[in-house]
Amino acid sequence: MSGQGGLPLEAGSGRRAVVLLSGGLDSATTLAAAVRAGWACYALSFDYGQRHGVEIEAARRLASALGAAAHRVVRLDLAVFGGSALTDPAIAVPETPGEGIPVTYVPARNTVFLSMALAWAETLDAHDIFIGANAVDYSGYPDCRPDYLAAFEAMANLATRAGVEGSRIRIRAPLVDLAKAEIVRLAIECGVDPATTVSCYQADAAGRGCGVCDSCRLRARGFVDAGLPDTTRYAP
Amino acid sequence: MSGQGGLPLEAGSGRRAVVLLSGGLDSATTLAAAVRAGWACYALSFDYGQRHGVEIEAARRLASALGAAAHRVVRLDLAVFGGSALTDPAIAVPETPGEGIPVTYVPARNTVFLSMALAWAETLDAHDIFIGANAVDYSGYPDCRPDYLAAFEAMANLATRAGVEGSRIRIRAPLVDLAKAEIVRLAIECGVDPATTVSCYQADAAGRGCGVCDSCRLRARGFVDAGLPDTTRYAP
Repeated sequence: MSGQGGLPLEAGSGRRAVVLLSGGLDSATTLAAAVRAGWACYALSFDYGQRHGVEIEAARRLASALGAAAHRVVRLDLAVFGGSALTDPAIAVPETPGEGIPVTYVPARNTVFLSMALAWAETLDAHDIFIGANAVDYSGYPDCRPDYLAAFEAMANLATRAGVEGSRIRIRAPLVDLAKAEIVRLAIECGVDPATTVSCYQADAAGRGCGVCDSCRLRARGFVDAGLPDTTRYAP
Repeated sequence: MSGQGGLPLEAGSGRRAVVLLSGGLDSATTLAAAVRAGWACYALSFDYGQRHGVEIEAARRLASALGAAAHRVVRLDLAVFGGSALTDPAIAVPETPGEGIPVTYVPARNTVFLSMALAWAETLDAHDIFIGANAVDYSGYPDCRPDYLAAFEAMANLATRAGVEGSRIRIRAPLVDLAKAEIVRLAIECGVDPATTVSCYQADAAGRGCGVCDSCRLRARGFVDAGLPDTTRYAP
């Protein structure tokens, strides 16, 4: 995996890259930073039966506002497998942090998303995939950690034409080692308007955060720690 | 990766496993062999915009006939990315074998399929995934080779609750080192009726093979080499 050392990013020099874009603060910041570094960014979002579908609308607006070369939204029925509070209405989103891997973890989510990004990268002849994974101020999901991302990269290089034909696929996670406060600062520096991003696990139909889920808590603390005004919209 | 040494398979003893089932001869044989070895098999198929949608109907019938515990068909819009003769009507399926990776290769297909299998395995609390990949009489796709499958397994063990909590995810490819003739013999031995499977890259609406694509050629040669009658249905 590349980018563990944080920014600055390698210059894209116009090269194509696929960028996973959820509509949240971290992926928006990743996209903005990649565009600023000169990558031609092909943003990829998923409609995977998540509760907070409003994040897909946020992703559409962000892809346009931040200068993505293209944006695709792929429908993906992860809800058919059940098992997560983010896709299964029968499982409540917890309001207090628990021990271990939380119920908001969607099974194999980043693996599925990165796999689809790899498929698009192959058809674009792109060799770089950006993901806003963060392993500092995060919810403890196993598929956000640097060793996971490195293993995905190793697999991708055996899975594809590019790998077989001698090019190198790179999974770039420029935020992976940043504290949330650093991400907030980077977002502002790259021109991301935090109010247009949706991080909440159970945002309302207007895209406003609940203020109590793990994602909202981590984000709010990031603004406090960064000493910046939090323009996030919360439901009353 | 487990199962590189070919059969016999490790006894399932009633344990759950996800089995990728395309409707072709190899995946049907993998499912039949896994059921026979005592695995509770959760068969998984994809409707991914492939030309030969008739294979999904074959998969439904095979899952039932071969004793799968359950069968899911997940819609997956790989065609949105284009780039393969199997999903893009603008690219012709070749009638003669070429050099290198063929145009029938679907970008990152096995990576996407295994990722979805991993997602289902997590929600089932299953730790085993079967795939009918074969690296002997095959079309030269990079994602059928043992080193690729081993890399996917390594990644999967870092991606999931099971890996984090100490269980071991295994990608089992029992056919990977078998010649097509051996697969044909195993299919018959396990009770698979070859006439009910669809391997052709451009089968007609009745599920009959074209007889000229790479997949049809490999399969037909397998029957000849095995010295068994080929009951495959071909279009006139």
